[in-house]
Parts: sequence; structure tokens; C-alpha cells
Amino acid sequence: MDFNPSSEGASVLKKVTEFIESKILPIEEGYFKELRALDNRWVVLPVIKELKKQAKELGLWNLFLPKSELGAGINNSDYALMAEQMGRSFIAPEIFNCNAPDTGNMEVLVHYGNEEQQQKWLKPLLAGDIRSAFCMTEPQVASSDATNIEASAIIDGQEVILNGTKWWSTGVGHPDCKVIIFMGLSDPGASKHAQHSMVLVPMDSIGVKVERMLSVFGEFDEPYGHGEVSFTNVRLPKSAIIAGVGRGFEIAQGRLGPGRVHHCMRAIGAAERALQLLIERGISRDAFGKPILNLGGNRDIVANGRIAIEQARLLTLKCAWLLDTKGIMGALSEVSQIKVVVPNILQTIVDQAIQIHGGAGVSEDVPLTALFTYARCLRLADGPDEVHRSMVARIELKKYYNLIKKNTK
Amino acid sequence: MDFNPSSEGASVLKKVTEFIESKILPIEEGYFKELRALDNRWVVLPVIKELKKQAKELGLWNLFLPKSELGAGINNSDYALMAEQMGRSFIAPEIFNCNAPDTGNMEVLVHYGNEEQQQKWLKPLLAGDIRSAFCMTEPQVASSDATNIEASAIIDGQEVILNGTKWWSTGVGHPDCKVIIFMGLSDPGASKHAQHSMVLVPMDSIGVKVERMLSVFGEFDEPYGHGEVSFTNVRLPKSAIIAGVGRGFEIAQGRLGPGRVHHCMRAIGAAERALQLLIERGISRDAFGKPILNLGGNRDIVANGRIAIEQARLLTLKCAWLLDTKGIMGALSEVSQIKVVVPNILQTIVDQAIQIHGGAGVSEDVPLTALFTYARCLRLADGPDEVHRSMVARIELKKYYNLIKKNTK
Amino acid sequence: MDFNPSSEGASVLKKVTEFIESKILPIEEGYFKELRALDNRWVVLPVIKELKKQAKELGLWNLFLPKSELGAGINNSDYALMAEQMGRSFIAPEIFNCNAPDTGNMEVLVHYGNEEQQQKWLKPLLAGDIRSAFCMTEPQVASSDATNIEASAIIDGQEVILNGTKWWSTGVGHPDCKVIIFMGLSDPGASKHAQHSMVLVPMDSIGVKVERMLSVFGEFDEPYGHGEVSFTNVRLPKSAIIAGVGRGFEIAQGRLGPGRVHHCMRAIGAAERALQLLIERGISRDAFGKPILNLGGNRDIVANGRIAIEQARLLTLKCAWLLDTKGIMGALSEVSQIKVVVPNILQTIVDQAIQIHGGAGVSEDVPLTALFTYARCLRLADGPDEVHRSMVARIELKKYYNLIKKNTK
Amino acid sequence: MDFNPSSEGASVLKKVTEFIESKILPIEEGYFKELRALDNRWVVLPVIKELKKQAKELGLWNLFLPKSELGAGINNSDYALMAEQMGRSFIAPEIFNCNAPDTGNMEVLVHYGNEEQQQKWLKPLLAGDIRSAFCMTEPQVASSDATNIEASAIIDGQEVILNGTKWWSTGVGHPDCKVIIFMGLSDPGASKHAQHSMVLVPMDSIGVKVERMLSVFGEFDEPYGHGEVSFTNVRLPKSAIIAGVGRGFEIAQGRLGPGRVHHCMRAIGAAERALQLLIERGISRDAFGKPILNLGGNRDIVANGRIAIEQARLLTLKCAWLLDTKGIMGALSEVSQIKVVVPNILQTIVDQAIQIHGGAGVSEDVPLTALFTYARCLRLADGPDEVHRSMVARIELKKYYNLIKKNTK
Repeated sequence: MDFNPSSEGASVLKKVTEFIESKILPIEEGYFKELRALDNRWVVLPVIKELKKQAKELGLWNLFLPKSELGAGINNSDYALMAEQMGRSFIAPEIFNCNAPDTGNMEVLVHYGNEEQQQKWLKPLLAGDIRSAFCMTEPQVASSDATNIEASAIIDGQEVILNGTKWWSTGVGHPDCKVIIFMGLSDPGASKHAQHSMVLVPMDSIGVKVERMLSVFGEFDEPYGHGEVSFTNVRLPKSAIIAGVGRGFEIAQGRLGPGRVHHCMRAIGAAERALQLLIERGISRDAFGKPILNLGGNRDIVANGRIAIEQARLLTLKCAWLLDTKGIMGALSEVSQIKVVVPNILQTIVDQAIQIHGGAGVSEDVPLTALFTYARCLRLADGPDEVHRSMVARIELKKYYNLIKKNTK
Repeated sequence: MDFNPSSEGASVLKKVTEFIESKILPIEEGYFKELRALDNRWVVLPVIKELKKQAKELGLWNLFLPKSELGAGINNSDYALMAEQMGRSFIAPEIFNCNAPDTGNMEVLVHYGNEEQQQKWLKPLLAGDIRSAFCMTEPQVASSDATNIEASAIIDGQEVILNGTKWWSTGVGHPDCKVIIFMGLSDPGASKHAQHSMVLVPMDSIGVKVERMLSVFGEFDEPYGHGEVSFTNVRLPKSAIIAGVGRGFEIAQGRLGPGRVHHCMRAIGAAERALQLLIERGISRDAFGKPILNLGGNRDIVANGRIAIEQARLLTLKCAWLLDTKGIMGALSEVSQIKVVVPNILQTIVDQAIQIHGGAGVSEDVPLTALFTYARCLRLADGPDEVHRSMVARIELKKYYNLIKKNTK
Repeated sequence: MDFNPSSEGASVLKKVTEFIESKILPIEEGYFKELRALDNRWVVLPVIKELKKQAKELGLWNLFLPKSELGAGINNSDYALMAEQMGRSFIAPEIFNCNAPDTGNMEVLVHYGNEEQQQKWLKPLLAGDIRSAFCMTEPQVASSDATNIEASAIIDGQEVILNGTKWWSTGVGHPDCKVIIFMGLSDPGASKHAQHSMVLVPMDSIGVKVERMLSVFGEFDEPYGHGEVSFTNVRLPKSAIIAGVGRGFEIAQGRLGPGRVHHCMRAIGAAERALQLLIERGISRDAFGKPILNLGGNRDIVANGRIAIEQARLLTLKCAWLLDTKGIMGALSEVSQIKVVVPNILQTIVDQAIQIHGGAGVSEDVPLTALFTYARCLRLADGPDEVHRSMVARIELKKYYNLIKKNTK
Repeated sequence: MDFNPSSEGASVLKKVTEFIESKILPIEEGYFKELRALDNRWVVLPVIKELKKQAKELGLWNLFLPKSELGAGINNSDYALMAEQMGRSFIAPEIFNCNAPDTGNMEVLVHYGNEEQQQKWLKPLLAGDIRSAFCMTEPQVASSDATNIEASAIIDGQEVILNGTKWWSTGVGHPDCKVIIFMGLSDPGASKHAQHSMVLVPMDSIGVKVERMLSVFGEFDEPYGHGEVSFTNVRLPKSAIIAGVGRGFEIAQGRLGPGRVHHCMRAIGAAERALQLLIERGISRDAFGKPILNLGGNRDIVANGRIAIEQARLLTLKCAWLLDTKGIMGALSEVSQIKVVVPNILQTIVDQAIQIHGGAGVSEDVPLTALFTYARCLRLADGPDEVHRSMVARIELKKYYNLIKKNTK
């Protein structure tokens, strides 16, 4: 057994951590102040461009991509620890070109894109020149059940025609967002997992319209944002389809394994940040003659937080290691397990940090409400807790298949 | 035993409920849409003025005031059920002139204000012509321990001079807010509970400045808002002091009993609203071949929500009944008990309702994030959970006084 | 609103409480020591007989029966508070002839028994001369679903023939247990709720055999105990059937309302006892320089325990009041609500009391493991938590019937 | 990173697992039936002796001892997985000579015992010829604070004299228990962690008396048991002291690291067993037309159980790996973290398994109450949850030392 990263991983991790601590964390508060003061917040501030340039020059770029010919060649378990560090800042993932949903989209293009698609979209994404969005969830149906998807991607001769409305399309508000990956129903008559296709849609296609940007707990998360996007008779050449008609589900499945590890490790970084804020506040303020942290059960909160984070991190690292060593099919349960655990512990710790802060905790003076919102949304994004619990149970019960069969005879 | 309201109470409750259901709930969504579309949201829209007029004409006015010569003459336990109904809408309390912090401030003036103070401030508050704020919490100290208060109210001859900074002064942004009740330190040398004074401060006094309005989870709650207010050498005649120098604590104590019942009953109304939204959504959407509500443990959530609300309501009603029959000193533990229980169950149920709604739950399309924020703040306002738990424990342990004494000898 | 018992109720409550505190609590520990020292514990010790005699003479007898011609004429909400007091001691219910399952069995006979049945069985039960058992649960099927019952009560001319195995038949080990109420399937072809019958079975009937006494967490709860009982071609005259063939379900339903209130109020008494033990231990022992109770979150445990008990008691009292004023059909949800809430809070508080006691908590030196076992079993007896949650949810959802109908069209 | 055991570890693990599955699990139920049928259960049944012999012959012996000259030479992280397997059976640890408290006592003798002590006590313990006990906890004081210990070990010339009463001395009832390690106060005037000594006490010393065996939830856990033991003027030569006067604390500290890993890994094995029982029962029984497991939130319970176990196992393995690579001082927080987490998840899962079993769950027909009791006691043994949480918090807060110092100036 060995709980350490590889020596190469450790070396890159050190650089990433130092970059975040010396370059990103010190400017984050100022960045948001500057952004909030703008009338139009849907812009990329110079500080972001500058930091991206520096990170790229240092080779701290596309770290999430295990394939060395395109990315940094770092495996999932080593990268996981870097993602955790990035999760300590809201802007760090972008700086290292490791931001969702671009990471997942790039992975899709790496694994399923053809030469032309890679040239056109993957290359500028890897370079950090453009951004992308992913359109799957729909407002009119319970999208936790992916077979509910109603938007269509119908083949018409050499073209594919898209219709429908998507929402929670994260990143669609970004000024550099140039391409959408769209999931639509191609053939309702096909077998359950062969009905959908994924299509690459240029943002400026005729018929694509961002109907509105959605607020989350009152915030729009500029300059990325989350959009409601309508697709009205959007006509594209068939070559816009990724991997072939009817392979949407298969691609979605493969896309989600590493993506969930990334999400969860960033959430663990966020949880560490929340715990740190909780402790610093609890030490710095006195009530009833003692530091707040020494009152009642507050130290137990610290202990429980530490324990929860340690366990969640180990589970996520093991999941990443399984992805590295056994692939997605060897990590199906774990991928769902971390998706249940990590956002929930983050939400709990942030809630407790808010409580220790008193009124300040719900204000803009500390980043706790932003962390809370992040946690709360992560319990819905990429499948709600319930769907993942259900998946974990299903896999567990398969071990008892013979007993089940006997009982149901 | 009798769990019914009095017959008079039942009759007014019926009118209040009908007014809310026929006049307020139908216009609430439109009201907020109209307000949000404004550049300046710190205004009272005509619809509010009109509804207030109607409520006043029907005698559905100042229902919170048990004293019949000034208010509606309804006791706390009967009013509690009306407050619950008001809690189903964010704007209802204002319509019936039953909005915090005005209610608490009016009660202070009823019980402790002299003739002149009542004439000047209570009369227009009762008439709904002006609004008020309450300045107690301070940004620089842990205000959960009221003895931490640093702002000063120093006697200087026939004047009192105020200095210090307060925040979370709710209502201070309202265009009709004309008066602040300010809690300040008058005599650090006096006994612990005789050091503070409460002072009536006209909003337009020289030296009073709203430094900024605070956002809560990104929202400013216009047109009331929560302000950070500085007081710089604010000079007022000694007659601005309520009840006398050094009586601030005593007044604060008395103010909080009924106020907490009101808060909690409104929160119960809010919890009923959240549970209703949860169920309606859970019934209306299908996933995996069934209404969402029939999946996994979702019906257990409904059951647990119902059980939690029933228990919390009964506890709050009992607390109100104790206030009616034994006064604040006979309800000290219960007042703290409800303050712990109710906001927490509200937060839990709203969180679950968000989960059932999926992405819609965190958007502006449903009022769940607003309900969540309300719950979250209520766990801090009027004393955080921890202080109230501590109070409940203290009162419980008094029953074992003899045993404690023996042990500590 | 009025949270007080009636004046008559208050007066009897006072007598019951005094009797328990002066006569029962002081001898309980000695009683169990004496019992445990016996080779055969399936006996009634003289102290029990003596106390029963005293209670009967004082009229503190059959208090659970609202009908005044037979019982004490006390309504459910008044009796509830007495049941709470009885719950403070494991032996008190028997002393006042208010012990389960005799209480439920007596109620069945009062409401459904004919003259002959009442003469034969109700009279000696009311007199406290015999005891009884109730045989419903079966080892071979999930008895939480009562329609699973497989034991049969088949009509054969003027006789009824019983076959099957029951278990968790509480009280069947008592030396005075003379009669069993047996629930069996009479007509599998009848409508779902008309298939079962209840039959009065003399313990000494041919074919009735107590196969074994069951231990619960290693204890046999002598002298009542819980038996596994086989019925092999037990032939009884048809007159042994209560109320008529096929009415078993109807009777079971009616039997359970008050019975659950009694169980829950006794459990609240038990919870008060556990909380008291927790506090007394927490005050009496020091660690790290303070009474244990002042360490970490221990005072929060006291507060949370107090709050949970208050809420659970109010809910149970309201349920009793609904039974009094609206009958079982007006209290269906509440009867299930209390059955979920109360045993769970009892289990939680006892678990915490054990923790505060350290090793002593799991030993025989304090009654905590007995209280724990009581709580744990109550979460299964009379329907597991899950069935009751499901019932609460079902009733809640009926309010949305129109919406459900619309959706499922 | 590597989550696999070493190849040698994997090979021994396979043998241990096979031995348990083929030899121990099949006979366990029969073993307990045979034992329970005895009048005197304080005996070693032949089946145990036979299995021990077989295990020893296969080299599956003293696996817990990393030092290869005495034990199996397996490091903590590899052994942890074997301990998990042993935790699936109540009798397995004894079979492999890996039973507490003998393991801890052997470790003490390995690290601190002198040649003579090792010859006299370690050798027969390693051979499995004798058993031992550990006497630390006392009935009269809160022993969670080890400085409360009152029993004395006073030097008198060339002798040491022991006085005091200990309890929860596990194993003291075993017919082969020949030696006790006793912790006593030697010098109340010494510095806080140098006041106590550990002494090797032959069971047959004059003045040693087992006052009574303690029941745990009504069970005596024969043939090991938990005793209350009095020491009255027990005179031993000074050579009975381990490592020297005043070194008791130091030894206790070192003893507990691996011991807690063993406890926790066995508890994880027990949790797997409980989860398996839960699932098997849930699949095998139907209610309301479905397998119980498919009702309500029961599948969520399976998922949550799986997730909790995975996390707890990883945390414990990491703790073992830290002990291997950094020693006890590098694993202080983790040792306490696992002690909080693991027994609690075991208790929760067992409680849920009981619930799914209905009445059977609390009976002797399934081993769930035994597993429950094991979990419940483990939350107290080797320091209660609260002490470990407090330790975790303390270590966490040390990271903020500079901030704390500044605040307290």
C-alpha cells in the first residue's frame, strides 16, 4: 500500500500548490471586487489572462489529461491532488485550463472526436483560446433520468437538425464560449441506450439562442454563467455528430468518470478552505469569555469536519486510482459513491462555518455563501445524490444475484 | 386539554387566511417580478399600499398586539396561528402591519415608551405610516454574547451621545424607515445587566450613516434590506432614552419572547409552503417510470417533514400559551427551544424541496432559495442556535441544583 | 388553547405520580435483584401483588379505560400523562393494571366482546386476576404487512380450527396468562380486509404449545416474556371468535389507536428517566477538571434531549386529544406519527445516556440497557417505523389527490 | 498510489480468508449453541483448541506482530486486511492468536518487557498457551481521563504494592488467563505523565480477587468475560514493573496505536457481516408485494452503508500505513479518527440490519444483537468517542498555533 502520489505527481503538485498560494489566492478577493463593480461582468479580466499565460509557460496546463501527447500526461490519482488544490479558489481551475465543463468536453473530443473535430475544437480548447458548454439537462423533464431527454437530433440526409430547450448549460455566458456539445434524441425506436447522439454546435449557429442566464441562489456566476438555451431547427452537417448517431449515451458515460473525480477533489479543496475559515474565525472571536471555538460542541465540529474530509479524500483518490488501473467499468460504484459523499460533506462544513461566522457568514465579506451554493448545486449536477445512491445500491445487490434469482422464481 | 384556538381567534384566523389566499398569494410572484425589473428597488410598490389599506379597513391590523387599546387584542397563542399563515408569503407580514422588526419595536414602545415617545413614534408605526429598525449586532464583536456590545450611549448632561457601528440592521433601507432603536453601552462599570441603554434615534440625525446595505446569499431583500450603520457623535436629548439609562438589557429580554414566537410561527408557515412545493413537484414529474415522489426514500421525506412540522408547531403554540398564561419568565426555556427547532426544520425541508426540484430548485423560478436564505439567517438572528441550546441546558440543569452544589463542594 | 389536563385528570395524575415515587421507584431495584437471583423467574413476587392491591384500593386501577362503567372513566389525553409516569418504572404499568398487551386486549373485549366473552375473560382481566397475550406476528413472513399472515382460523361447522406459528407473543410466559387473542386467516378469498378473524384461545387448549421463550438483547423479560407459540389443530367453539368471522382487521385497527398513545407516553416517561440519569451522572463525575456534563457538546445533548421530549410529548397528547374528540379516523396520521417519533427519541437519549455513563452504562448497574432494549423493540412492535412513515406520507398525499389524478391520467 | 496490499500480504490474506470461510464461519453458530447449553460456559471447547492448532500449523499465527523474529513479520497495513476478515466471526481472532487484549499485551511485552518478563509471559502468550487481561478502567472515576486513575502501585523497598479496584477487565474470566497488566499510580507528585506504572500481576497473586463478572446488555461474553477485579495489598517484586516506575503512560500510548487499528478493522469486518445480513434478509422477505429491500428508503440504506464502510476502511488502512511508515507520532490524529468513525458506522449499520429483520433482529436467531453490543461497547472502550474527537480537534488546531497565540496575547 502507498498513499503517496508518484514522485512526478508530487513535483507537479508542489508547483501547482505554490502557484495557487503565491499568485492566485492573494488576488482572488480583489478580482471579485473588480468584477462585481462592473456593469457588464461577462468579461475576462486582464488578471485572468495574465495568470493563464504564466501557468501555461510553467507547463501547469491541461493537467487533467492523462494522455501525454495532448495533456500533461498525469494519471487521475496524481491529478486528483492537484484538483483539490485548485478547489481552494474559484478561479484557479480556469487559470490551469482545467475548468469544467471544458475538461469533460476536451476528454470527449480526445476519445471520440475525429481528426477534423479535434482540429477545429479540441486544439483551441487545449490552447485555452476558446471555451465550451455542455447541453444535456432540460427544463421540462426530470433530467436525472437521462432517458427522459426530449430535445431532438434528427438525421435529415447529410444533415442533423436540432430542436429543444436545454438549461443549466454552464459556461454558455462566457465571451469565449464558441462551441456546445448537445445531447439529443435521434431514434426513439432504438434500444434504450442507443437513442441519443452528441452533436458539436457552434455557438453562432442559426437557431441557437440563449434565452436567459439563470441565477443560482441569486448569483449569475459571471463570466461563465448557466444558461437556458433554445435550439430551433438548428441545421448542421452530419459531421458535427461525435462518434456516430446513437452513441450519445456511451460517450456521456465515459465522460463522467474522471469528471466526477475532478468535481469531488475540487470540492474537497473547497471543504478544506471552509474548515480553515471556520477555525480562523472561531479562534479570533470571543464570546462568554472564551474563543468561540472552545464553546459547546464547536471543537467536535472541527474534529468531525477533519474526519469527514480525510475519509472523502481517500475514497476519491481510490476512485481515481481505480480509473487509472481498471478503467471506468472497474470504478462505477466508487464514481457514484464519491458523488454522494463529497458534496454533502462540503455543504455540511460550509453550513457550520457560516454558523460560526454569525451574520458575516451570509454576507459577501467572506466566500462562504459562494461555497455553499457550489456545494448545493453539486448535489444536483451530474446526477442528483438519489441517482448515485441508487447506482451504488444496484451494484451492491448484484453480488447477491443468485439469492435474488432464487427469491423471485 | 384543548388544541383549538379561541372562537374569536378562529374567526380572525379565518379572515386572515382568506385574505392571504385570495389577495396576497396570487399577486406575490408578479410583485417580485415587477420589483426585480426596477433599477431602484428601494421603493414601496402601489400594490403593497393598496393591500395594506384593505387589510386595515378589515381590521386585520396590528394583530400581534395583545393589548386591545392599541392592537387587535388577540393573545399570543391565537395570534401564533395567524403568524403561521403570514409566513406563507414574504410580503404578508407587512400587509397586516405585523412585520419584524416593527412589531418588536412597537412592543418596546407600548411597554417601556413614555407618553411623548409613544406619540412621536408608536402612533405612526401603529398606523403603518412609518417603518423602523433595530440596531444591536455589531461587526467587530461576537454579538451572540450581548455583553460584548461596544457601541456607546454616553450621557453628557442633558444629552446622550452615540458612537459605534452596527450591522444587520434590518429594515434600515426602507424608504419609510424613520426611526432606529439603538442599543449602546452607557456605563461599563455598572452591574452586568445594567450597563446598556436603548435609545430612539431619528434616521435623519446628524452622525447616522448607512455605510452599505448587506447582501444575504447575494440578495439585498429590498425594499427593507439589512444595513451596516455607523453612529458618529450622534447627539440626542436624554428623552430619547427608553425607560431610563441602564435598562437596555431588561427591555431586550422582554422584547424577544413574543418576537421569537412570531418568527417561529412564520417559519412554520414557510415550512408548510416548502413541503407543499416539494410534494407538488414530486407528484408532477416522472423519472424511471414513476412520479419522483415515489422513488427511493422520498415519501419518507414527506412523512418526516410532516412530523417535524407538527411537533414544532405544537411546541411553538405551547410557548405562546405559556407567554399568555405565565409571562416571559414562565416560558424562558420554551422560547429558546422553539428558536432552535423551527429554523432548523425549515432549513431541512427547504433543502429537501430544492433537491426534489433539481436545477429549478436553486433558480429564481421557484421561491426555494429565498426560503432557504430565510431559514439560514433565522438560525443566526435573535441569537444563534448555540446560545439558545445553551440556555435550554442551563434551565434544565437548574432542576439538579442540589446535586450540583454537592458535587462542587 | 389549553395545555393542562382536566382538573379531575390532574387530581388522579397527582395520586399516580405520588404512588410511583413513594411506593414503586424505591423498590424497583430491589425487586429486580430479587427476581434475578431466582432460578425460576417466571413468577409474581409478593411485592407486586401487594402493590397491586394498594393501587386497586386507591382506585388507581384500569385508568386506561375511558368507559366509566368498567374503567376509571378517564379520557385518553388525561390518561396519557399518567401513562408517562408509569413509563418511569418497568413494573408500574402492571401495578395499576395498565400493562400491555392486557390493556389492548381488554379494550377489544369492551368494544367487540359479547356478554359471554366479557364475563369469561374481561372480568378477571379487569380484576387483575389473570393476564393475557396477543398472537399476531409470525416468524415465517414479514408481519409488518398484516396481509402476509399465514396462520389459519378455519370455520368447521360450529367450530373454528387454528393452525400456525406465532412469535413475539408478549406476556405468554406469565404464570397468570390464561388467554390468548389469536389473529388468523379465515377466508383467503374474501376482500383484503375481511379475510382474518380474532379468536379467544384459552392457554390450556389442546394444540397450543409455547415452543420457546425468545430473548431480546439477551434478556427474557421475566415473568412476562415473549414466546414463540405453535397452534396445531386447536379446535374451539365458534363462540370463541370475537365479533364475527372476518372482522379481525377491523378490530386490530381499532385496538391500536389508544394502545400506541399508551406505548408512546410510557416511552416518554422512559426518556425522562434516561435524561435524568444522563444528567445526574454527567454532574457527578469529573474528567479533565470539570464535571463531564460541561465537556464538549454534552450540554447540547441535554438541550436537544429536552427539546425532543417536549415536542414528542405534545404530539402524543394532541394525538390522544384527537382520539378523544374525533375518534381513530380523525387521528390516523397522528397515531403513526407518534409511533415513529417517540421510540426513536427514546433510543437516542438512552444511547447518549449510556455514553455519558461509560462502561457502567452497558452493565446491569444502571437500567440503561433495559431502556435501550425497550426503545429498540418499540421501533418494531406494533408496526415498524417504515410502515408508519409510509402511512403518514399516504395521508399527506391524499391532500393532493386532484393533482395526482391529473398527473396519472 | 497503490491501494493493494503487498504480494506477501495478499497471499497470507487469502489463506486467512479461506480458513475463516471454510473452517470458522461454518461452525460458529454450532459453537455458540453448544456453549450456551452448558451450565458453566467459562471453558474452552475442543473445537476452539482444534482450530487453533490447525491455524498455528498453517503459520496463520500471531499475524499482528510486525517483528518477524516473534510474530509473522507482517506490517500493520497488510495485517489490517486480515483483521477485517477475522472481524467477520466472533471467534476467529482467538483462533489465530490475534485476540484483544492479548495482542496489546504481547506488544507491550515485545517493546517494553525485559528478558525475564518475556520469557515468563510473552513466550506462553505467543504460543497461545495462556491468556491475559489488562486492568486500567476503574469504577469510581471517569476513566476516560486517564489521570483520574486512583488505583496505586506503590514502591516499597524491593517490592511494589498494588491497591484499588478495576473493572471492564476483558478476558479475566478465561480459564487460561494467567496474567494481568495493571496500571496504577506510583507517584502523584511526579509530572502528569510520569505518575503511573504498569505491573505484571500473576492471576493467582494473593490479594487479587475477581469480585464479579459484568454483563454487557445482559450477556457475559463467556469464556472471556469482563471482570471487576479488586487488588488488596498485592505485593510483587519490583521486577514485575514493566520498563520502570512512572513509565505507564508512555507504554499505554504506544500500546494503543496498532490496537485501535486492529479493533477498527475487525469492526469493519463486522460491519460487512451486518450489511450482508441486512441485504440477505431484505431480499428474502416480501411485504406489500415486493422484497423488503425495495421498499421506501431501504436501498439508500444499502448504499449509505457501502459508502460508509469503504470510507472507514480506507481511513483505517491509511492509519495503519502511517503507523508503518511514520510510527505512532505520525498517526496520532488518524488513530483517534478511526476510533470515532468505525464503531459508529458499525452501530448504525447493525441497527438498520435489526430493523430490516423485524423481531428476529433482536432475538438470538441472528447475531445482530451481539454485533450491536460489540459496536456499542467499542464506542466506550479504549477511550470514548468524545475523547478521541477532542484529540482530533486538538491536533487540528495546532496548525493554527500562531493565530491562537496572537489572539490570546
